[in-house]
Amino acid sequence: MHKKIVVAYSGGLDTSVMVKWLNQNYNAEIITVTGNLGQKSELEGLEEKAKATGAVKSYIYDLQEEFIKNYAFKALKAGALYEGQYPLATAIGRPLLAKLMVDVAKTEGADTVAHGCTGKGNDQVRFEVAFKSLGPDLKILAPLRTWEFKSREQEIDYAVTHNIPIKITKKSPYSIDENLWGIAIECGVLEDPKVSPPDDAYQITSSPKSAPDASEVVEIEFFEGTPVAVNGKKLSAVEIMNTLNPIGGKHGIGRMDLIENRVVGIKSREVYEAPGAILLHKAHHELEKLVLDKETFRFKQDVSNKVANMIYEGLWFTPLFDSLMTFVDATQKPVTGKIKLDLYKGNATVFSRESQYSLYSELLATYTEEDTFNHKDSEGFINIYGLPYKTMSGIYNKANEGK
Amino acid sequence: MHKKIVVAYSGGLDTSVMVKWLNQNYNAEIITVTGNLGQKSELEGLEEKAKATGAVKSYIYDLQEEFIKNYAFKALKAGALYEGQYPLATAIGRPLLAKLMVDVAKTEGADTVAHGCTGKGNDQVRFEVAFKSLGPDLKILAPLRTWEFKSREQEIDYAVTHNIPIKITKKSPYSIDENLWGIAIECGVLEDPKVSPPDDAYQITSSPKSAPDASEVVEIEFFEGTPVAVNGKKLSAVEIMNTLNPIGGKHGIGRMDLIENRVVGIKSREVYEAPGAILLHKAHHELEKLVLDKETFRFKQDVSNKVANMIYEGLWFTPLFDSLMTFVDATQKPVTGKIKLDLYKGNATVFSRESQYSLYSELLATYTEEDTFNHKDSEGFINIYGLPYKTMSGIYNKANEGK
Amino acid sequence: MHKKIVVAYSGGLDTSVMVKWLNQNYNAEIITVTGNLGQKSELEGLEEKAKATGAVKSYIYDLQEEFIKNYAFKALKAGALYEGQYPLATAIGRPLLAKLMVDVAKTEGADTVAHGCTGKGNDQVRFEVAFKSLGPDLKILAPLRTWEFKSREQEIDYAVTHNIPIKITKKSPYSIDENLWGIAIECGVLEDPKVSPPDDAYQITSSPKSAPDASEVVEIEFFEGTPVAVNGKKLSAVEIMNTLNPIGGKHGIGRMDLIENRVVGIKSREVYEAPGAILLHKAHHELEKLVLDKETFRFKQDVSNKVANMIYEGLWFTPLFDSLMTFVDATQKPVTGKIKLDLYKGNATVFSRESQYSLYSELLATYTEEDTFNHKDSEGFINIYGLPYKTMSGIYNKANEGK
Amino acid sequence: MHKKIVVAYSGGLDTSVMVKWLNQNYNAEIITVTGNLGQKSELEGLEEKAKATGAVKSYIYDLQEEFIKNYAFKALKAGALYEGQYPLATAIGRPLLAKLMVDVAKTEGADTVAHGCTGKGNDQVRFEVAFKSLGPDLKILAPLRTWEFKSREQEIDYAVTHNIPIKITKKSPYSIDENLWGIAIECGVLEDPKVSPPDDAYQITSSPKSAPDASEVVEIEFFEGTPVAVNGKKLSAVEIMNTLNPIGGKHGIGRMDLIENRVVGIKSREVYEAPGAILLHKAHHELEKLVLDKETFRFKQDVSNKVANMIYEGLWFTPLFDSLMTFVDATQKPVTGKIKLDLYKGNATVFSRESQYSLYSELLATYTEEDTFNHKDSEGFINIYGLPYKTMSGIYNKANEGK
Repeated sequence: MHKKIVVAYSGGLDTSVMVKWLNQNYNAEIITVTGNLGQKSELEGLEEKAKATGAVKSYIYDLQEEFIKNYAFKALKAGALYEGQYPLATAIGRPLLAKLMVDVAKTEGADTVAHGCTGKGNDQVRFEVAFKSLGPDLKILAPLRTWEFKSREQEIDYAVTHNIPIKITKKSPYSIDENLWGIAIECGVLEDPKVSPPDDAYQITSSPKSAPDASEVVEIEFFEGTPVAVNGKKLSAVEIMNTLNPIGGKHGIGRMDLIENRVVGIKSREVYEAPGAILLHKAHHELEKLVLDKETFRFKQDVSNKVANMIYEGLWFTPLFDSLMTFVDATQKPVTGKIKLDLYKGNATVFSRESQYSLYSELLATYTEEDTFNHKDSEGFINIYGLPYKTMSGIYNKANEGK
Repeated sequence: MHKKIVVAYSGGLDTSVMVKWLNQNYNAEIITVTGNLGQKSELEGLEEKAKATGAVKSYIYDLQEEFIKNYAFKALKAGALYEGQYPLATAIGRPLLAKLMVDVAKTEGADTVAHGCTGKGNDQVRFEVAFKSLGPDLKILAPLRTWEFKSREQEIDYAVTHNIPIKITKKSPYSIDENLWGIAIECGVLEDPKVSPPDDAYQITSSPKSAPDASEVVEIEFFEGTPVAVNGKKLSAVEIMNTLNPIGGKHGIGRMDLIENRVVGIKSREVYEAPGAILLHKAHHELEKLVLDKETFRFKQDVSNKVANMIYEGLWFTPLFDSLMTFVDATQKPVTGKIKLDLYKGNATVFSRESQYSLYSELLATYTEEDTFNHKDSEGFINIYGLPYKTMSGIYNKANEGK
Repeated sequence: MHKKIVVAYSGGLDTSVMVKWLNQNYNAEIITVTGNLGQKSELEGLEEKAKATGAVKSYIYDLQEEFIKNYAFKALKAGALYEGQYPLATAIGRPLLAKLMVDVAKTEGADTVAHGCTGKGNDQVRFEVAFKSLGPDLKILAPLRTWEFKSREQEIDYAVTHNIPIKITKKSPYSIDENLWGIAIECGVLEDPKVSPPDDAYQITSSPKSAPDASEVVEIEFFEGTPVAVNGKKLSAVEIMNTLNPIGGKHGIGRMDLIENRVVGIKSREVYEAPGAILLHKAHHELEKLVLDKETFRFKQDVSNKVANMIYEGLWFTPLFDSLMTFVDATQKPVTGKIKLDLYKGNATVFSRESQYSLYSELLATYTEEDTFNHKDSEGFINIYGLPYKTMSGIYNKANEGK
Repeated sequence: MHKKIVVAYSGGLDTSVMVKWLNQNYNAEIITVTGNLGQKSELEGLEEKAKATGAVKSYIYDLQEEFIKNYAFKALKAGALYEGQYPLATAIGRPLLAKLMVDVAKTEGADTVAHGCTGKGNDQVRFEVAFKSLGPDLKILAPLRTWEFKSREQEIDYAVTHNIPIKITKKSPYSIDENLWGIAIECGVLEDPKVSPPDDAYQITSSPKSAPDASEVVEIEFFEGTPVAVNGKKLSAVEIMNTLNPIGGKHGIGRMDLIENRVVGIKSREVYEAPGAILLHKAHHELEKLVLDKETFRFKQDVSNKVANMIYEGLWFTPLFDSLMTFVDATQKPVTGKIKLDLYKGNATVFSRESQYSLYSELLATYTEEDTFNHKDSEGFINIYGLPYKTMSGIYNKANEGK
C-alpha cells in the first residue's frame, strides 16, 4: 500500500530508527529529506548515513535564507508572538519542511510522507495540516504514535540489531529543537513548573546575571516592516540573524520560561531562547508605535494574536492565513525606519527611534508656545464624545437600581 | 449662571490661579476638592491655602485604599495595559476624583464642576465623561482651555496681583503626575522622541545599570485575581503598593518610554514609572497562564485590550465597562496562588508558580513513562482538524490560480 | 469493565437496538434516560418499552420549562445565532440532556454513559464534551461510531432477532430532530444544495406562499432580556413557545435553508424551522437597538458570534461560556420593554417599540425647532476626530507612493 | 482668507442659499460641484442655475459607474451592513463626492471646500474626514452649522431677496437622500419610533402586502465577489443596479426601519430602501457560505462589522480601511458562482446555489452508504478536543465552589 515514503530525517536516533522501521514494516522505498534551518547538528555525512540506514535517496537542502526571509520575517511583520511572548521558532519551521517534503514526494512520485513527531506535541499537527493542504492525496505515517518501542533503550537496541549507524552519546537531559529564529527546550526537570530552569538548559544566551557590565547599542533598520540592516550595514536575512543572535545572546536577551497551551488540549512548560527574534520584534513594535495610526495599531493587535495562534496551530497553508498576511503587508508600507536598542543584562531598552513616516508631530504634541493644536476644539469633541453617557445617565442608573 | 463651583484642586500654580479666576469671572462660590491618591505633594495646610485663595470650603480626602482596591486592582484583574505596556496610573485615578467631585457637588448643591486640565490631554476627557455620566445636570468648566494666560509667567503675575499663596520654586523641566499606581512624566526634552529620557526624569526607580548587583526574590500571592500578600505577609491594598514600589524601584523595574496614541488624535511621548504595578501585572499574568484554560485566555486577551482602551479613553463609568468587568471577575475565580519573581537590574523573571487550581498536569505533559496522554487519539484529531484543508486543497489552489 | 451504563434513549430504532447491543456486548446493567424537550414523539409506554428491551431502569423527565428558561432564553439574551442565522435548537438541548445523564449516573453509581449519535455529526461532540466536563470519571460509549451494522435494515434484523419492540413504519425521507426551540431536518434530497427543500420537509411552518392573506400583529414583552409576556399576557417560558410557535408557523416565519460549517470539519446542508425562536430573536434585537448604547451594542455583536459558536461546538459547560454569560446578563439590565411585530407571509416587520430605558431622545434627534443638540460642538468634534488623518495625509500617501 | 471655495451643490434650497451666502460672506469665488450617483433629482439646467446663483464655475459629473463599481461593490464584498442591516448607501457616496471636490479644488487652485450638511448628522463627518485625509491643506466650511437662518422660511426669504432661482414646491414631509445603492428617508412622523413608517415614506419599493402574488426567481452571478450578471446576462455595475432595484422593489424587498447609533453620539430613527443592494448582499452571503472555509468565514464576520462601522463613520480614506480591504479582496478569490433567489412579497429565499469552488462535499456530508467520512476519527478528535474540560473539571468546580 505504501510504495515510496518521503521521510523527514534529522539523523538522530528517532528518525534513524524510523527509516529502517518503515522500510521493514511497509516494504517501501524510503527517501529522506533534511532541511537546514540553522540548527547546529551536523549535516555532513548525513546522506551516507541515511543510505546506510536503508534509504534509497537522501535530499539535504539549505533552507536558511528561505526560512528567515519568507517565513520568520512574515511572522515578524505580523507581530506574531504566541500568547504574547513566544516568537514561534519551531512552529514557523514546520510548514516549510512539510512543503519541501510534499515537493519531493511529487517529484519522486511518492505516495506517502512520514514524520518523527510524537502523538502529544504540536509538531505532528503542523506537519500533517500542511501535508493535507499541499498534498491532499498523500498518505501520512507517524510511526512514533504507533510503533512498539516504549523507551529510548528499546530504540537503541533496535538500532544495534539492525546496524543503524547512531552515535551513542550521553543523553542530554533536555529535548532541544533549534533553528535560526530560536530554540525550544523541553523535558527533564523543566516538566516541573515550580522549578526555575537550570542554567545548563540554555544553549545560546548568557544569564542576565553573567552578561557584560557594559551595555551595547544596536541599530536595526526596517524597510516596509522587513529588517534590512544592522548597525548601518545592509545584510541578508540569514546574516541579520547571525548578527543579532550572538549580540542579544551575549547580553542575556531572549530567554523565556513559559506555561503554554498546546494544540492538543494540554498545558506544557516550555523554555525558549530567541535573542535575535526578540530584538527584532521589540524594534519592529517600537517602529510601528511611531508610524501606525491608532486604528490600524489596535486592529493589528487582534490580528497579531490571531496570526500567532494560527502559526502555533499549524494553519500556515490555509486561506485565512493568506488573507491575514495581505492585511499585514498592507499595514507595513510605512514601517520603514531605524530603531536603536540599548542592550544590558537582559534589558533591551529603546534608545532612539526614527522614521520618515513618523506620525509623531512635535508641533501638535508640545506644551511649549509652538503648540499648533487648537485647544478649543476639545470642548466640542468631548461634548459629543460624552453625549451618549450624559443621555443615558439617568436611564442606565434606573435600569441598574431596578435590580 | 454658575452659583457654586466644585473645583479639582491640587494647590499647585494652575489650580490656585483657577480658584481665584473662577471666583472673579463667575462671581460664584468656590468649593475645592482634593483627593489623596498617594502623590507625594503636601496635603498639610492645603485647606487653609484654598481658603486664602478664595474658596468657601475645602475638602481633602484620603482615597488611597479606595483607589488601589477598587480601581487599580480592577484594572489589574482585567490585564489592562494600554497599547500593551502602560498600566494606566493617571487614567485610573481620574474617574475616582471625578466621582468624588460629583458627590461633593450633590451634597453641596453645586451646579458646576471645574478641572484644571489642558485642552490637549486625555485627562479633560476622563474628567468630563465621568461628570456627564455621574452628574449629567452639572455644568462643566475647563478654564485652562479658554482663559487669557499664555504662559506660566502670566499666571504667576496674576497670582502675585491677587495675593494667591504660591510657592515660587524653580520649575521642574518636567510635568509630573503621581499616584500609588504609577507616575507619568512629560514635557521638556522628552518631547523629542529621538532622545533617550535623561536619568533625572525618573522619580522612583533606579536605572537598571545602577541597580543592586544582588538579585532579590519577591513572592506575590493572589486570591481570585486580587493581590493579598507579599512575601508571605497579608497586606492591605495600599500596603502592597508601598511594599512593591520600593522593591521594584530599587531593582530598576517598571520604567517605560513610549510613543502613545492620545484620545484627542495625536501621538505623544510619555515616560512612565510603575514598579509595583508592573510587578503585579507580571505576576498576575504568570498565574493566569497556569490556571486559565486556553479559550478563556484567548478571549481575555481581546478583553484586556478593550478594557485598557476604555480606561485610557475615560470610559470607566459606562455600561460596557461595567459589563466587561463582570466578565473579568468571572474569569478570576481560579486566579488564586503564589508567584515568585526574581528581580535583577530591570528584569523580573518568574522564579516559581503555584496554584491549587493549576491546569498544568505533569502526568499529561510528561515525556517520561508516566505519561497518561493517549497518543493514538491524535491521529483522529488531526484527521478531522485538518479535514477542511484537505477538502479545499484542490479547490482553493484552483481559485488562486484563476488570478 | 462497564458495569452500569446510562443510555440516552428515545425509543426509536437506533437507541432501542443500542440498549440491547450494549447489554449484550458489555454484559452491563442498562439504565435509560429520556428527556422531554418538547419533541412530538410519544413518551407514553416508553418506560415499559425500555425495560422490554433489556433496561433495568428507565428515567423519563419533563425538561421543557428548564430547557426554555435556563437554556434557550440564555442563548436568546446572548443573541446567539450560528453563522448569523440558526437559533441552535438541537445544540442547546444536548448539554441539558448530558447533564441529566451525568446526574443519573452519579445517583445510580454508573461508570459509563452512552449516546446514539453518529461519528460525523455535531451532537456526539456536544454530548461528550459535557460528559467530560461534568463527569470526568465516566467512561463514554458511542456505539453508532463502532458497531457492526451498516444499514437500517441490519438494525431491524437485529431488533427482530432479539425481540426488541420497534414500530416498523415507513421511513421518513428525512432525519428530524425536534424540540420547543426548533426543528432540524436533514438527509434525503436535502443533501443536494442545488435543490430547494421540498415542502414536505417542513413540519411546523406554512410556506409564505400559503400563509394567510391577513397580517397579524404580535406583541412580545421582555424583562431584562427575558421574554415574559405575549400580547399582554404573562406566560411561562413553555407557554411562550407554545404560543409563538403556532403564530409564527402560520405566517411562514422561521424557515431556514443553510449551508453550515460543522464541528467535524465538513460543510453540511441543514434545513431548520424555528418560528417562535426567530420571532423572539427579532424582537429582542429590536429592543436592544433601542436601549443599548453603541459601545455595548458593538462589543456584544462579537460576543454573540462567539457564544453562538461555542454553543454550536458543544462548549456550554466551560469556563469561558460561563464568563461570557455574566457579560451578557450584565448587558441585559435595560432590555425591558415591548416590541410589536407585524407578521405577514414570511415577514416579521417591527411595528412599534417601547421601553422605559429607551436611549432614543426625540429632543436630540429631531430636525424641528425643538432640537436641543448643539450643532456647534460638531466642528470641534470633527477637527479632533479627523486630526490623525489630516496629520498622516502627506505621510501616508508618501509611504504608499514609495511602492 | 477664503479666495476660492469649492461647494458641494445639489441645486436644492440649502445648497442654493449656501452658494450665495458664501459668496457674500467670504467675498470668494464659488465653484459648484455636483456628482450624479443615481439620484432622481434633475441635473439638467443645474449649471445655469448655479451660475445664476453666483457661482463662477459649475462642474457636473456622472459618477454612477464609479460609485457602484469601486465603492458600493467594495462594501458588498466586505459584507458591510451597519449594525447588521443597513447597506450604507449615503455613507458610501460621501467619500466619493468629497474626493471629487478635493480633485476640483486642486485643479482650480481653491483654498476652501464647503458642504451643506447639518451639525448633527453623519454626513458632515464623512465629508470632512475625507477632506482632511485627501486635501489636508484645504479649509473647510459648513455654513449650515453656523449661519443665521433658523428655519426653511428664513432661507426662502433670503433666496427671494437675492434672486436665487428656487422651485417653491410643497415641502415633502420627509428628508430624502437617494442614490443607486439605496435611499435614506428621515424626519416628520418618522422621528417617533413608536409609529410605523407610513406607506408614502417609501419611494421605490412596494409594500410586501401589495407586491405581486406571483413569485419570481432571479439569478445573480459573481466573479471573485463582484456581481457580473443577472439572469444570465452580463451587465455593467450600473446596469446591475438598474435591473435589481426595480425587481426587488416590485416584490417588496429591501425596506428597513431602524433605530441606529449616529457618529455624533445620538440614536436616530432611519427608514431605508435598498432593494438591489439587499438582494446582492443576500446572494453574496449565500455564496460565501458555500465557498469560504469556517475560519475565514468567522474572521470575516468581525471584519464585516468593522468595515461597516468605518464606512458609516466616514473612515473610507484611511490606512486601516485600505488594509482591511486587501484582506477582503484576498478572501474573495473563490467567491465565484451563481445564486438564485426566489422573490415573493418581501421574502428573498435562496433557491439554488452553485460554484466551482464549493466546499460542500456530498461524499463527506451524506448519510447514505456513499459516505467517505471516517467516523472512527471522531473518537480521537473528541478526546483531544474535550481534554481541557476533562482536566479542569474538578479544578474548575472547586474554584467556583470556593465562592
